[in-house]
Amino acid sequence: LDRSPVDQVLEKVRLAVTRGDWDVAVALVEGLRPPDQADLFSDLPPVTQDELLPRLDSEDSADILEELEEEAAAEVATRLELRALARIVDEMEPDEAADLLGDIPSEQATEILSVMEEADKVRPLLDYPDDSAGGLMTSAKVVLRGPHTVAQALHHLREVAPDSEDVYYLFVTEEDDRLVGVVSLRQLIVAAPTALVRDVMDPDVIHMHADADREEAARVMARYDLLALPVVDTAGRLMGLITHDDLVDVLEKEATEDIYRLGGIAGEQPTDFAIRGALWTRLPWLVLNLGTALSSAAVLSMFEDTIARVAVLTAFFPVVAGVSGSAGTQTLTVTVRLLALGEISRKDALAGVAREVVIGLTNGVAIGALIGLIALLWKGTPVLGLVVGVATLLNLISAGISGALIPLAMERLHLDPALVSPVLVTTITDGFGYFVYLGLATLVLSTLV
Amino acid sequence: LDRSPVDQVLEKVRLAVTRGDWDVAVALVEGLRPPDQADLFSDLPPVTQDELLPRLDSEDSADILEELEEEAAAEVATRLELRALARIVDEMEPDEAADLLGDIPSEQATEILSVMEEADKVRPLLDYPDDSAGGLMTSAKVVLRGPHTVAQALHHLREVAPDSEDVYYLFVTEEDDRLVGVVSLRQLIVAAPTALVRDVMDPDVIHMHADADREEAARVMARYDLLALPVVDTAGRLMGLITHDDLVDVLEKEATEDIYRLGGIAGEQPTDFAIRGALWTRLPWLVLNLGTALSSAAVLSMFEDTIARVAVLTAFFPVVAGVSGSAGTQTLTVTVRLLALGEISRKDALAGVAREVVIGLTNGVAIGALIGLIALLWKGTPVLGLVVGVATLLNLISAGISGALIPLAMERLHLDPALVSPVLVTTITDGFGYFVYLGLATLVLSTLV
Repeated sequence: LDRSPVDQVLEKVRLAVTRGDWDVAVALVEGLRPPDQADLFSDLPPVTQDELLPRLDSEDSADILEELEEEAAAEVATRLELRALARIVDEMEPDEAADLLGDIPSEQATEILSVMEEADKVRPLLDYPDDSAGGLMTSAKVVLRGPHTVAQALHHLREVAPDSEDVYYLFVTEEDDRLVGVVSLRQLIVAAPTALVRDVMDPDVIHMHADADREEAARVMARYDLLALPVVDTAGRLMGLITHDDLVDVLEKEATEDIYRLGGIAGEQPTDFAIRGALWTRLPWLVLNLGTALSSAAVLSMFEDTIARVAVLTAFFPVVAGVSGSAGTQTLTVTVRLLALGEISRKDALAGVAREVVIGLTNGVAIGALIGLIALLWKGTPVLGLVVGVATLLNLISAGISGALIPLAMERLHLDPALVSPVLVTTITDGFGYFVYLGLATLVLSTLV
Repeated sequence: LDRSPVDQVLEKVRLAVTRGDWDVAVALVEGLRPPDQADLFSDLPPVTQDELLPRLDSEDSADILEELEEEAAAEVATRLELRALARIVDEMEPDEAADLLGDIPSEQATEILSVMEEADKVRPLLDYPDDSAGGLMTSAKVVLRGPHTVAQALHHLREVAPDSEDVYYLFVTEEDDRLVGVVSLRQLIVAAPTALVRDVMDPDVIHMHADADREEAARVMARYDLLALPVVDTAGRLMGLITHDDLVDVLEKEATEDIYRLGGIAGEQPTDFAIRGALWTRLPWLVLNLGTALSSAAVLSMFEDTIARVAVLTAFFPVVAGVSGSAGTQTLTVTVRLLALGEISRKDALAGVAREVVIGLTNGVAIGALIGLIALLWKGTPVLGLVVGVATLLNLISAGISGALIPLAMERLHLDPALVSPVLVTTITDGFGYFVYLGLATLVLSTLV
């Protein structure tokens, strides 16, 4: 989306603020959609933010705090006066309010809760970790009771008068709050008014336990095209709902996490450009990489004599190690992604490894023959060509095996396949590649010198 | 999601089929949810699939064809008898029907369309490429007219009697089909019956041109939390809607595409385990990698004399080239992901490069000092330690610059940053690393021998 319309409004807001014309600034901001309001807001200096936010309608302020990046929202909130902040948090969606309160100092959060009107809706949401289904859910706005009649249920709906967005699915509980079914508005309308809700509803309702992983909840919502997913506690009581806007957020966060981990960046995704955070998520990984590079260095050291006698061997290091490293990364990438998408079942796993061996063998024959030929033509030594070609072939097979086997083993060990596998695969393709190549070269040394 | 419940039903279906008890098999399949039906169906042998599908309710058959992977659905459809297929396609969502007809032989598609009842809804959708907003949209089920009264609009709604899923947003057009606004059911209900729809509606409606990229459409839906996004032609006429289920599909496809491209796998994502497809998407990339490895080989060849005289130098190749390669991949990964998420604007770009230079410098000092020390302690040669350390420092800075600059340049050239950048960055970190390291070593050769 082109940001320029927002940038134009930003200029006008800045001008109005400079003139001290807050009414104009407020009107300009309130004319935007929430994500655009948040974009504009985050481009203002903190002192202007603090002046502007309490002047906005509480609903607009709440929208802005919901749409800002988490750390930015917490910073803004921490600077606000207690009553002003409580008024805004009262207007936020309960799940967003809980996330914000979890990000600010806990004494401040406690004080806010003590003066909030909607504290009862937010407090239960604070008990669950961010990466669980419970951490994603918001409190359900409309819940029907199984023992009620259809007429009572419709009366209740008119009283609550929910937005149409909140009535895609109407979840049904028994008196003890156990989730027992789901019913649509249309089913209620066509049913006899004296029928019981529990006789009209569909008892087969997809749900999730509060302590399930948020990614699992997102996968279920995506698979079954759900706009809302009910969350229950261990006793089966309805605790809240995960709504469709969270689905997209979770899928993007999980994709970003996998992309970053495959790219050798650990920890939370950097949401800003802070250098300190970047160093913290990258340097440890580079040091780990240094360790694995030293294991290759140890292999190379073993063959120093061979290298000193046939220095031409080194020219093909980048080929033997590099191309196999790329092939290992390819296999690894496919395996990690298919695991993340839930497309590899246990029975597929062995077939997948076998398949990667065949691919490694085929690519190995093709690339090995090609590089052997190049080595022969370039350096004019048939034996060198043979050594380079055979080493490449063997290392591409090892790349296929390790690229498939390592992430599958990590998954089996309940470790994230995206996190540790890339380093291990590179270590193996590098170390094994140098060992096979220089080992073969040493065996035929007499013909190379 | 645990697949075992589906696997249990699968066993029972297989048993029923063996006994020729089709009624039981049909009842078992019809008791599942569509994604589970499709999972079970795809595990059956083709001959059973062909017997089962026409026996199912058309709606269930349609659900299965919608949920199967595209190629699998096309294969099944191609084997079906014409009238049976037409009956099923008539029950599919228009966008899914259009996708399927685009995947089967065109004569068969034309015949199907000629006997379909819903052909008019599907035909206009066939004109747009798969990766455009038009290729994602489905025909709108309920459209209100601006010049009608609220009473007329509500009467029309009762006549069409849409599912509650189809009335989150009611889009409004003028007589010439131009999209002019959006209205909610609630706004209609509280408005005066004699008011005109165009006076009640919100005229500020987010929409997308049919030829826009599907990823752009998905980004807009995700940003503004839309459940449906109207698509218009160049004259502003409403052509159809993109619905929320497509949003998740597109975001996952685009994330997979980026992950695969960063992992060195070109082309469409492999949806099955076919070896031929895997070779086709990987081998060309390995050959390209071979080319870049040869450029490093050329650099190494320049320094053959130095290597022959100081073979110990080779032990640190994996460190100088490998660690910098990892750092380049880190920078590249962050830059590509932030570009994909639309979080880098033009003004950020230069700051981003500057930031990566600082990170490269800082990491370079840390890693360079560490590796220099290791080289000194391991090989007992202070000058070697200095050469390794300085080369690593310089190459980490070059990794930061190339890792940030190359994807930004690709984006500016309207090329996919995920596609070509990884190979280029690796080529630079490898080639530059060897050149600096061996160049420095050659300069101080007399002290090393």
